[in-house]
Amino acid sequence: MIPPTIEWAGDRVRLIDQRLLPGDLVLAEASTVAELCEYISTLAVRGAPALGAAGAMGVALAHVRGEDTSAAGDALIATRPTAVNLAWGVRRALDADDPVAEAVRIADDDVRTNRAIGAAGAELITHGARVLTHCNTGALACVGYGTALGVVRAAHERGRDPFVWVDETRPLRQGARLTAWELSQLGIPCRVIVDSMAASLMRTGEVDIVLVGADRIAANGDVANKIGTYAVAVAAQHHGIPFYVAAPRSTFDDACPSGDAIPIEQRAADELGEVPDGVDVDNRAFDVTPAALVTGYVTEDGVAAGS
Amino acid sequence: MIPPTIEWAGDRVRLIDQRLLPGDLVLAEASTVAELCEYISTLAVRGAPALGAAGAMGVALAHVRGEDTSAAGDALIATRPTAVNLAWGVRRALDADDPVAEAVRIADDDVRTNRAIGAAGAELITHGARVLTHCNTGALACVGYGTALGVVRAAHERGRDPFVWVDETRPLRQGARLTAWELSQLGIPCRVIVDSMAASLMRTGEVDIVLVGADRIAANGDVANKIGTYAVAVAAQHHGIPFYVAAPRSTFDDACPSGDAIPIEQRAADELGEVPDGVDVDNRAFDVTPAALVTGYVTEDGVAAGS
Repeated sequence: MIPPTIEWAGDRVRLIDQRLLPGDLVLAEASTVAELCEYISTLAVRGAPALGAAGAMGVALAHVRGEDTSAAGDALIATRPTAVNLAWGVRRALDADDPVAEAVRIADDDVRTNRAIGAAGAELITHGARVLTHCNTGALACVGYGTALGVVRAAHERGRDPFVWVDETRPLRQGARLTAWELSQLGIPCRVIVDSMAASLMRTGEVDIVLVGADRIAANGDVANKIGTYAVAVAAQHHGIPFYVAAPRSTFDDACPSGDAIPIEQRAADELGEVPDGVDVDNRAFDVTPAALVTGYVTEDGVAAGS
Repeated sequence: MIPPTIEWAGDRVRLIDQRLLPGDLVLAEASTVAELCEYISTLAVRGAPALGAAGAMGVALAHVRGEDTSAAGDALIATRPTAVNLAWGVRRALDADDPVAEAVRIADDDVRTNRAIGAAGAELITHGARVLTHCNTGALACVGYGTALGVVRAAHERGRDPFVWVDETRPLRQGARLTAWELSQLGIPCRVIVDSMAASLMRTGEVDIVLVGADRIAANGDVANKIGTYAVAVAAQHHGIPFYVAAPRSTFDDACPSGDAIPIEQRAADELGEVPDGVDVDNRAFDVTPAALVTGYVTEDGVAAGS
């Protein structure tokens, strides 16, 4: 069994160091807000729902250390500007009488919420369906179980025998490293492909449904998610393949009118690996998929049709 | 100045070992057909037009060594099944009275042909145009100058100030390693992006035209090219951005009725890098872009409209 992605351990935060997967499963600990911020910025812990828990636990850390929780919240939110769940988790802990209890509650709720997402979404997976997914939306992106990958997992648990095409997900290869690892642990068959092969698999009739997660969903239904999600959505529409976004309600940001208002994080050039001396890199970590390309949204409340 | 990508050196073939770029510019030599086949299969030399010259030079090698040229031709063609230029170069050398002279002629013609492609295509590049390209179609993909990148180069020489978005081109990163290197040598501004970001740049209005090369063009205009080309073509059509294919006439295979008849090379899984133990990879090296998505074809004869 895989341990929780992130958990409150008395006076510190314990988390799976995802930078070392799939080679090594190592638990790391953060005793200070600065340590946790470092784990978040370097993607030792990542994934929108996991960041919600991480944000709350960061505030809880400041609280038990007698530090300024509001300053801690600001520092935590600044690490990843695109995911709304991080700010949501910080705010929930700041608003609570007992930030520690609130952080633990968020973590507990996460797994329950994801199982509900899985149960709702499993109905979309026909027997033997070939699912294409991008990035990692499994247990490792959450406290446990997963969102879009949780839907696949729920279908697998119901005997639907899904197969998964796993986009590698450059630059940091969360698909090849994390999603493929989770699927192999769960005994769900999958194959890893380079991101740019996804459209071609749709043309050759090898994809039945696309399932992705989200880092923020604007009030009009536009979805910010890992860079490359939009390319998959365009290709899915071109081929008439359903494109579903699975995410907890905490990913919906009603204060954000549309995708245009979502800040897009630019990450370090060296994530792409070697490029010639003096050559620039543009490394936007996220893109926006307009609501018009989304067939439906799967949340803990059920499946809602897209526009 | 960059030396020729591949040249006949008396009794052997000299070529730039592209596996070592952009770190090191090293010239390698093949004295036997087996050595040359190894360089071709491991992509020390690659790119459709360069493979045409390599095929002819391989037959020339067998000829000067008094070996069976027909068997040599078969071995050479078997190294890369998708690119038609390789078979074309082999056949030209086999049909010639003097395979060495024919191989040298093919190499000389290549640069002339590419300059003609560049001159024809430069007209498509408006001043300051932001070009998106995939894989490497520069001097390194040819004996010299380049095809799709030759068009950019010709536009640059004519003072059009093009800017290039360079798709990294997974799995072997020919864009990040080779195209970016060539552009920086030529003083043409560019930025490297992960392949999956191309569609998003089109949505944000940052791409004016797409230029790619081809490994084989069927009689109906379908184009086999590096994996990911099709995804770019679909995105370009979605955004109303022109999508041009630049290639010498030798890339057109009139014996091949459509893209369905083009064999797609499956390459080794380890090209993708680390994946979890026991997880499969699907590593198709090429995809097919239907003629309907091609705005036009740029050859040494000029620009022909697509369907």
